[in-house]
Amino acid sequence: MKETRICIIGGGGRLWAIQFMKDLAYNTMTHGTLVLYDIDKEAARNNIAVANQVFAVNKSEGRFNVIAIDDLGEALSGCDMVIISIEPGKTECRYGDLVLPEQYGILQSVGDTTGPGGIMRARRALPIFFDLAKKIEQFCPDAWVINYTNPMTLCTAALYKAFPAIKALGCCHEVFHTQNFLARKVSQWFGVATPDRREIKIDLTGVNHFTFVTKAFWQGHDLMAKLIEEVQDPATFADETAIAKERLANEKWFDCDQKIALAFLRDFGALGAAGDRHLAEFVPYFLTSDENLHTYGVIRTPYEWRMRTAAEKRGKMFKDEDLKAVLSDEEGVDIMRSLMGDKSMVTNINRPNEGQISYLPKGRIVESNGLISEDSIRPIVATDPPLAIQNLIKQVSDVQEMTLEAIYNNDDNLLFTAFLSDPLMNLSLDKARELFDKMLKASDLQY
Amino acid sequence: MKETRICIIGGGGRLWAIQFMKDLAYNTMTHGTLVLYDIDKEAARNNIAVANQVFAVNKSEGRFNVIAIDDLGEALSGCDMVIISIEPGKTECRYGDLVLPEQYGILQSVGDTTGPGGIMRARRALPIFFDLAKKIEQFCPDAWVINYTNPMTLCTAALYKAFPAIKALGCCHEVFHTQNFLARKVSQWFGVATPDRREIKIDLTGVNHFTFVTKAFWQGHDLMAKLIEEVQDPATFADETAIAKERLANEKWFDCDQKIALAFLRDFGALGAAGDRHLAEFVPYFLTSDENLHTYGVIRTPYEWRMRTAAEKRGKMFKDEDLKAVLSDEEGVDIMRSLMGDKSMVTNINRPNEGQISYLPKGRIVESNGLISEDSIRPIVATDPPLAIQNLIKQVSDVQEMTLEAIYNNDDNLLFTAFLSDPLMNLSLDKARELFDKMLKASDLQY
Amino acid sequence: MKETRICIIGGGGRLWAIQFMKDLAYNTMTHGTLVLYDIDKEAARNNIAVANQVFAVNKSEGRFNVIAIDDLGEALSGCDMVIISIEPGKTECRYGDLVLPEQYGILQSVGDTTGPGGIMRARRALPIFFDLAKKIEQFCPDAWVINYTNPMTLCTAALYKAFPAIKALGCCHEVFHTQNFLARKVSQWFGVATPDRREIKIDLTGVNHFTFVTKAFWQGHDLMAKLIEEVQDPATFADETAIAKERLANEKWFDCDQKIALAFLRDFGALGAAGDRHLAEFVPYFLTSDENLHTYGVIRTPYEWRMRTAAEKRGKMFKDEDLKAVLSDEEGVDIMRSLMGDKSMVTNINRPNEGQISYLPKGRIVESNGLISEDSIRPIVATDPPLAIQNLIKQVSDVQEMTLEAIYNNDDNLLFTAFLSDPLMNLSLDKARELFDKMLKASDLQY
Amino acid sequence: MKETRICIIGGGGRLWAIQFMKDLAYNTMTHGTLVLYDIDKEAARNNIAVANQVFAVNKSEGRFNVIAIDDLGEALSGCDMVIISIEPGKTECRYGDLVLPEQYGILQSVGDTTGPGGIMRARRALPIFFDLAKKIEQFCPDAWVINYTNPMTLCTAALYKAFPAIKALGCCHEVFHTQNFLARKVSQWFGVATPDRREIKIDLTGVNHFTFVTKAFWQGHDLMAKLIEEVQDPATFADETAIAKERLANEKWFDCDQKIALAFLRDFGALGAAGDRHLAEFVPYFLTSDENLHTYGVIRTPYEWRMRTAAEKRGKMFKDEDLKAVLSDEEGVDIMRSLMGDKSMVTNINRPNEGQISYLPKGRIVESNGLISEDSIRPIVATDPPLAIQNLIKQVSDVQEMTLEAIYNNDDNLLFTAFLSDPLMNLSLDKARELFDKMLKASDLQY
Repeated sequence: MKETRICIIGGGGRLWAIQFMKDLAYNTMTHGTLVLYDIDKEAARNNIAVANQVFAVNKSEGRFNVIAIDDLGEALSGCDMVIISIEPGKTECRYGDLVLPEQYGILQSVGDTTGPGGIMRARRALPIFFDLAKKIEQFCPDAWVINYTNPMTLCTAALYKAFPAIKALGCCHEVFHTQNFLARKVSQWFGVATPDRREIKIDLTGVNHFTFVTKAFWQGHDLMAKLIEEVQDPATFADETAIAKERLANEKWFDCDQKIALAFLRDFGALGAAGDRHLAEFVPYFLTSDENLHTYGVIRTPYEWRMRTAAEKRGKMFKDEDLKAVLSDEEGVDIMRSLMGDKSMVTNINRPNEGQISYLPKGRIVESNGLISEDSIRPIVATDPPLAIQNLIKQVSDVQEMTLEAIYNNDDNLLFTAFLSDPLMNLSLDKARELFDKMLKASDLQY
Repeated sequence: MKETRICIIGGGGRLWAIQFMKDLAYNTMTHGTLVLYDIDKEAARNNIAVANQVFAVNKSEGRFNVIAIDDLGEALSGCDMVIISIEPGKTECRYGDLVLPEQYGILQSVGDTTGPGGIMRARRALPIFFDLAKKIEQFCPDAWVINYTNPMTLCTAALYKAFPAIKALGCCHEVFHTQNFLARKVSQWFGVATPDRREIKIDLTGVNHFTFVTKAFWQGHDLMAKLIEEVQDPATFADETAIAKERLANEKWFDCDQKIALAFLRDFGALGAAGDRHLAEFVPYFLTSDENLHTYGVIRTPYEWRMRTAAEKRGKMFKDEDLKAVLSDEEGVDIMRSLMGDKSMVTNINRPNEGQISYLPKGRIVESNGLISEDSIRPIVATDPPLAIQNLIKQVSDVQEMTLEAIYNNDDNLLFTAFLSDPLMNLSLDKARELFDKMLKASDLQY
Repeated sequence: MKETRICIIGGGGRLWAIQFMKDLAYNTMTHGTLVLYDIDKEAARNNIAVANQVFAVNKSEGRFNVIAIDDLGEALSGCDMVIISIEPGKTECRYGDLVLPEQYGILQSVGDTTGPGGIMRARRALPIFFDLAKKIEQFCPDAWVINYTNPMTLCTAALYKAFPAIKALGCCHEVFHTQNFLARKVSQWFGVATPDRREIKIDLTGVNHFTFVTKAFWQGHDLMAKLIEEVQDPATFADETAIAKERLANEKWFDCDQKIALAFLRDFGALGAAGDRHLAEFVPYFLTSDENLHTYGVIRTPYEWRMRTAAEKRGKMFKDEDLKAVLSDEEGVDIMRSLMGDKSMVTNINRPNEGQISYLPKGRIVESNGLISEDSIRPIVATDPPLAIQNLIKQVSDVQEMTLEAIYNNDDNLLFTAFLSDPLMNLSLDKARELFDKMLKASDLQY
Repeated sequence: MKETRICIIGGGGRLWAIQFMKDLAYNTMTHGTLVLYDIDKEAARNNIAVANQVFAVNKSEGRFNVIAIDDLGEALSGCDMVIISIEPGKTECRYGDLVLPEQYGILQSVGDTTGPGGIMRARRALPIFFDLAKKIEQFCPDAWVINYTNPMTLCTAALYKAFPAIKALGCCHEVFHTQNFLARKVSQWFGVATPDRREIKIDLTGVNHFTFVTKAFWQGHDLMAKLIEEVQDPATFADETAIAKERLANEKWFDCDQKIALAFLRDFGALGAAGDRHLAEFVPYFLTSDENLHTYGVIRTPYEWRMRTAAEKRGKMFKDEDLKAVLSDEEGVDIMRSLMGDKSMVTNINRPNEGQISYLPKGRIVESNGLISEDSIRPIVATDPPLAIQNLIKQVSDVQEMTLEAIYNNDDNLLFTAFLSDPLMNLSLDKARELFDKMLKASDLQY
């Protein structure tokens, strides 16, 4: 494979950036230059050592020349690949995203993708992405760009809005977790060892974090047919309040048993293909109360924990054993290999709609399978889900489109319209306006 | 104009049927045969005398030969026009439609078009319309069919579902009321006498009872521009709770001041073009509580009044003065004249989408302007409303489509999915199922 | 009606400009200012006197203040209406358009709309229209613009290309001639006096000069049904060679008997709605030879006559009797009245596709019925013609789109691709290139 | 891989059937039952021995149980795969297809896919396919069906017309030849050994035999960019008349140098992806005369040779060395493996349009890349070719649709409309009708 120059925007990060380095080390065919860029210039510089540690631990010294560059344009110049994984705004901003809506009875389990929290986060993130896209147009217009930042759909859409010819995609591992869930089901149903998730062939459709599996096969077995049987059994939906309480006690914010994903299959006709905490936020049925949410075994991640965790991450020192590279659940490096011409692959990606999703307008950022090969990503036409699922996804995508337009045009009135149009909105117009104004004010605070 | 044979399905009715007779009497060019058909055969026969009274009072004796026919096929045979205005099921059925959801916190102001009540009413009505369409196919396939029955969109859709080549349309006077509102505004703004509503040129888009004005002109004046100014003024939305209380006291269920229609203009970008009591039912913002609804001056029509009124209507005797024909707010007879070749007209109609509504799939029943001329209805492409309005209408239309499919296929599970997907739904999945099952049971009761 | 300021681009013309003045005089509700602009400044100034003569002859003195303005921007400033009727290039340019292709066996009957001649004429005309649109954007962006210049579709498309928000339409009388033909048929079939063309209600679809009638009614009679019978009779297509010879001898270039229009009905399923000399140019079936063309009674207009006629027109003096206004077959002034708010009208117009033509992409300039009312033109969804007709129209529209793109981008290679793609093209690629290069050279000549 | 029951319709054939057996032998993972069905029952029975010889020669005895079944329904019962490769009608029928149009100046190089010959062949073939589809619906509705018969697009479309839920695709090797051409170019350009065609990654779009490559890569090299340079060089299009003469002399009907494929790239913007003899038949530019055709090195296959060859094929005895299996240029067996769950593959296939081809209506049979995996074929959205190419393909697809409708409805008038609409048609309407009637008569002859 040819030499590759990669720039990580958010290269000072202590989580994704490190994971990406490990994946680079794991994929022995890759080599070239790794440029770290971060608005926290010192953090980027500090990560040079971590990167070198990663390559050393994994016997890959010399494969990548790691450098940090302070100037964004310079960092991008000559790059073949740009990886974006940033935190838009301080963690303190999450207060307004999460706590204020809660005071009005609007609960969110994550709040970084959709709902009032997601919209406000978008308002902080998108201007950064508009600017990034313009810089990419100027300094490396032919580079492939992979975004990992949430709100995924909107951040990726922002890149295309500001530079329509950009070669960008969004990557997310949530769908892989659904494949893992199905792999465990395979083990349970057929009495075999849990297969690798890549053996589960699925067709999927939707927008990031609100994606649905319409078909799933494993070695001649139609897995959806079996799941449809299961969701007819009330036992599948036994009350998980006790489990939820335990998860709260143990701070297991991310654990779930796909009960919400399965509830979509039972009542709307397709299996949710993201963690339950994400799925729950796109519809009005689950976050009516913590009690309701807990019956599905799902809990909300509290603001307080986010603050605590962010602080811990910043101070973290990496031991060699933390940096051992194994086959990970992130595909960024595999995708990079395919784009550089090594071999084709099919996986789920976030891309502008060219017809792969029949029920959404062309140009919207959607998530579905795509064929990735040399300098090319071609979307695969997704199987249509039932109309009820289409209806839910169309609402979400329309709110995203309004949000994009509003932020692009600095139009907070249109943003309020988007805010009202979100499926989680259950307030009167007056209360909604009141909350929106408070959240605007909170989001504009400088920490 | 040539002689016309007209059949009124629901010809025993005491309200619409009589109004239609008056309109026939008023339009002096019409003549021919008027066939009354009703499942209450005696009511149809009794209305012969009323019809003759109508023609006599209005100096139109002999223009129409009025007969009642008991057999539906025979009644339809040879007809040029079929008018449908029926009550699907006993008034007692409205109990389940309205009172049961209220017990779960879902309030409806009308409950005959959308929401849980509208869906259950559709479940009673649509089988009748499937059957009617089949009979029309058999006995008068070339007849033009005008439907007045609610749920308007679904009943008209049912006709096309069962007989795709039917020449049918749905008529509704709600938009005329919006024109009247604008006419009163014209008077107020320009210091002139209130003009006739037909002088207000509007463009509109949506589905019945959830229609929106995107453009309005009167003699060189852009009325929307002036309204947009008005909705910026908080005084426009002064609290109308006191007015609402008075309306409650005086049983003025149908009165409104277009405050909800105007709130759509302010927050979503287009003026609602139906009575507020209808508009409120299609979104989650107004019926959160009676208190909230009352601030817009809108009140809910109670079940108890519907029962009382139905009884009164049945016993009603008509005095000659009740039957005097004047230019009415129903256009059925005018449309009939145009279809029979007399002259072309442009008005709002409910028809399958052929491209007049860009944001809805082809074939859906939509409301917008159409050109009516000899044996032809051609839709006029509506101006696109803002995306936020499109989004709301798409949800409503999708729920209607699911409801249609569910009822056509006797699939109560799919009907539950439609029920869940309705914008008024704010329950957990379990509570929703519980309510749905109760409503099904109530709807299946034989009174 | 309010006072109107109108600018005629091509105001020095001796045909359309004068006709428009007569129509203004005939429509007694119009009044205001008439600005004459022409690149031949003297011609514009000379037409002031003609205009005043027109108004005097028709007892309309004082209704319009007629002025000539030399500067285009100044001429446009403050206008409510802009009328465009120009000759793009000298008549001598027609030599290359018509005579060169003939040398290669490609015959054209008109050569101003389509085929090699139409494409070269577009290459001269469109830059003028790009410039006009930019000037309109600058000096009177809210004005309504009516174009009469050929190639109609491309000139109107050019206006939208350069100024997408322009309020423009194209007007053409060819469809009226089809209505007149049908009116004569009505007289023949029903033994009545020939009705006014406006009594013939038609639905039509296509692009200018290649438009098709799908439905036609007169007072309760389905005219298409009767025509379909007629085209089954071979007598309808009796050889008209003798008639064609006579027409040649008498220089009756524009006469025809709709035999080609009817041949479309017989073999493709819809009635051509333009003169046969136009229809023949869009398909390969009629201009294979003069002999073939003459069997339909159609003859080609020779270059020599065009030169002679142009010279005569320039020298023409108008007698009062030439200037008497009667109800004409041009609708520009009626449309102006409707746009200014006087009353609504339905007629055929050339406009961007918003969905009125289901089988063409949005944005293409198409011809079909539209509703014209105050400051608004709303297209009416046309009935779909048979697929065979759609196929022919799609080819024509695609060639137009390529031509537009090529000229807009000064890309003569793409223009050659359009040239190849024209349905009249029957040469090998080498011969086609040779002809194209010769025509380019001829078109670039300065006369 | 699981056991598979395969039925070959046309199992008595001496070319495709044998090739398929060899591919089965080559793919060692396949095993099961092979059912031979043919209307020539004896031929099917005779092929049992050939099949067994094939498996024996290739050391695959016992992998497939080969049987012949006389009754179609019985032959299909229980099948997982159905392979269709038949000759619709006697070879004598080709006389009318090819020789009659030639008498009117319409030349065809193949005449089995498009043009007058293709349309008449479709008229013989499609009724067989309507019937096959109905039988498949009845006896093995879940089987995957692979069609190899020409006219490919129409035969495959006929399957879907008669049984819309059929799981069918069409396979063709023409695109592989284009990949081979590009592979040879790679060798020439980069001085390497000719790579395997599967290493050439292409994106393609169109309908069978009229497909176009929009992108092509090999190991980091953009092949289209290099080809575009080449077609600018006149040397690329040096006169090949001498080569054509030689090919005529040596009966090398199928040889070509992709000069027509390259002419499309030069003048229309995309590389033809089928043999030149196929490409030439879809447009009016090449078959204007044999002289013109020969300049591209292409010759027409004569009727006389087809008769001679058919006779030879019938009598053929297979030597063991003829039956040695190697990696072939047919992918049917590979596709079968993927559908049976063995591994996913991406290749070009003929399938109903679900959005993979943006410029054609949904449902049309189109050729482009698809992802084939367990019990699933998902189309990949093709890159849009230039509008000029889209325009050519749309015409072809529309003529195919008209042909399908005409034959399905036994409507020879509509078939004549399709015949007229074919791009090779260059006759007057009268001559066209005359030819059509003669061809109908010839096609209806029983040999």
